[in-house]
Amino acid sequence: MKVIVAKTAGFCFGVKRAVNIAFEMAPKKQKGIFTLGPIIHNPQLIEELRKKGLAPIEDINTAGIKTLIIRTHGIPLQLLNKISAAGYEIVDATCPFVKKAQHYAKLLKEHGYQVIILGDREHPEVQGLMSYAGKNVVVVDGKSPLPEIKRKVGIVVQTTQPVAALKKLFGEVVEQAKDVKVYNTICNSTALRLKETEEMAKGVDTMLVVGGKNSANTTQLARLCRALAVSTHHIETAAEIVPEWFTGAKRVGITAGASTPDWIIKDVVKRVSASAPCLRRRGHRRIKG
Amino acid sequence: MKVIVAKTAGFCFGVKRAVNIAFEMAPKKQKGIFTLGPIIHNPQLIEELRKKGLAPIEDINTAGIKTLIIRTHGIPLQLLNKISAAGYEIVDATCPFVKKAQHYAKLLKEHGYQVIILGDREHPEVQGLMSYAGKNVVVVDGKSPLPEIKRKVGIVVQTTQPVAALKKLFGEVVEQAKDVKVYNTICNSTALRLKETEEMAKGVDTMLVVGGKNSANTTQLARLCRALAVSTHHIETAAEIVPEWFTGAKRVGITAGASTPDWIIKDVVKRVSASAPCLRRRGHRRIKG
Repeated sequence: MKVIVAKTAGFCFGVKRAVNIAFEMAPKKQKGIFTLGPIIHNPQLIEELRKKGLAPIEDINTAGIKTLIIRTHGIPLQLLNKISAAGYEIVDATCPFVKKAQHYAKLLKEHGYQVIILGDREHPEVQGLMSYAGKNVVVVDGKSPLPEIKRKVGIVVQTTQPVAALKKLFGEVVEQAKDVKVYNTICNSTALRLKETEEMAKGVDTMLVVGGKNSANTTQLARLCRALAVSTHHIETAAEIVPEWFTGAKRVGITAGASTPDWIIKDVVKRVSASAPCLRRRGHRRIKG
Repeated sequence: MKVIVAKTAGFCFGVKRAVNIAFEMAPKKQKGIFTLGPIIHNPQLIEELRKKGLAPIEDINTAGIKTLIIRTHGIPLQLLNKISAAGYEIVDATCPFVKKAQHYAKLLKEHGYQVIILGDREHPEVQGLMSYAGKNVVVVDGKSPLPEIKRKVGIVVQTTQPVAALKKLFGEVVEQAKDVKVYNTICNSTALRLKETEEMAKGVDTMLVVGGKNSANTTQLARLCRALAVSTHHIETAAEIVPEWFTGAKRVGITAGASTPDWIIKDVVKRVSASAPCLRRRGHRRIKG
């Protein structure tokens, strides 16, 4: 059995940056520092941070706040204003690519476009984007039909969406609108990860997709693999692995979302190896010790 | 045998306007009035105008010019400037939708976009558009692969292109560019004519596509029908009809390009009826006497 690990598995630029900020601030154990919501969508990493004294809170009226670290997905403008008004120190760990998407949403609104956001309305990143996009904003997930839109529309995209969804959306939009401005705010690392995962899934018997169950981009990787009819398991940690998954498998592929720490991927690789005694590991990439 | 005539066959708004201008000016038989190139792409109509004293010329240095009527497809800016400099009176019969596309090409250039024109590089409309689009302009016909483009691009479209070609182009562009502005300058009447023709072609045994052999939009209608594997004949006039085309046919569809005069469509319908003695005509539209 060969085990192949995706080169693109794990932390992207924005997550790395946010996690570095969080770990830098956590050891100081200064009272009054919190992340506003989970800084990234990985429960295990959040737990590590908590052990070091940095916990997420949901309510900005929690007693004792001095400093708030803004999560990598960003937050709505109104909330940012409230935090400023409350006098807290703000440490902004929003992914720079998400910041850019927020900026473009604002720009489109200011230039008179009706803003269309391609993404998941429930996702914190999209909720942030919506706050910059003006009152006529439309959020579409690429599955439901496009509602009636204006003649002049601007599109921004949740950074973790697949480019195929943007192409499909444009096809629908151009049937109604005459003036369409598109900011392709899809993060390159997402596109590359989806591409590598797709190629990998086509050549293996079993796929392991590693990452938070609450991580949109990890869930999307698992959805992509399942759509290719390969046996797929979305796990958060090595502890979930069932050796029987690999019975008869000749090739096992491992990929991971943008918010999955390297140590978790490494554990998964180890556990898969232990599950198949006669296995020969052949990685696409080296897992950092 | 049923004969069905497309509701959308024949003159569009821009052609109607240009032809009206030409016929209004022709009867005056004032010396020195010419159209610069054929005012529309229909040889029979050009011949009618010539009989009334209005001829097309190709060279703006032709002796005796006083007034030039600009064709419905528009002309390059440099040529317009030369005509102005020569002191000729200009009567602009450019289709207002083409004028709009020229304006958008200019606007995109002025706002720092690399302009991509979707259309046929040899077509006068596209040559006009190119003159407004700046030196980095790229012309794509939707068949050849997209060359390397910049990150900030703007798209304008030859008014008679199918929307499917624009969707396909966007799919290619968004793989390279991050900031894409699209002016969907496809004329609605073109889109409707293509749509009706497609539906019609699916339900008949033989299609007649009537219009200038030099008319891009007529040629496109014929190409569409052939792609649907229906027996298709592109004719300019009723004189080209061969009765054997209808042997065994139960339903015959007739459509025509945007530059095809009603009198020619009417003649075609008459001749088809004469070719099939037991035929019952059932029109989608009334042909004006």
